[in-house]
Amino acid sequence: MKTRIHVTLKTGVLDPQGRAIAHALEGLGFAGIGDVRVGKLIELELADGTSDADIDAMCRKLLANTVIENYRIERA
Amino acid sequence: MKTRIHVTLKTGVLDPQGRAIAHALEGLGFAGIGDVRVGKLIELELADGTSDADIDAMCRKLLANTVIENYRIERA
Repeated sequence: MKTRIHVTLKTGVLDPQGRAIAHALEGLGFAGIGDVRVGKLIELELADGTSDADIDAMCRKLLANTVIENYRIERA
Repeated sequence: MKTRIHVTLKTGVLDPQGRAIAHALEGLGFAGIGDVRVGKLIELELADGTSDADIDAMCRKLLANTVIENYRIERA
């Protein structure tokens, strides 16, 4: 079973990587660039019986830093 | 206009970060972990008139390394 975890920085947390991307895009001549935020996309191949609670525990224990990051679980 | 870019490694490209995550999850006691792949999720706030061609150009020129990465554009 394929599962996707989207890990994004919480609102208010500075994102220097996103700022760098915004500047670089402007430097390349693209206009109208606003806020840019960079997150992670983790694709896991899990056994079919894996429960939602287990996946949530994986996120909280390892995949996301819940102090500064939000996560969203998407089961395929 | 909010736009999400999903950048993922192409099939066949080794993903040491994904391997490390798989090992760490097993170390934490989770069973049934198969392949794990880590990609990037880039959220851009763009001007409303930005064309699909422009967004595609941003991906090819800066956001993804098309030698080893695929990208998918999701307009909100």
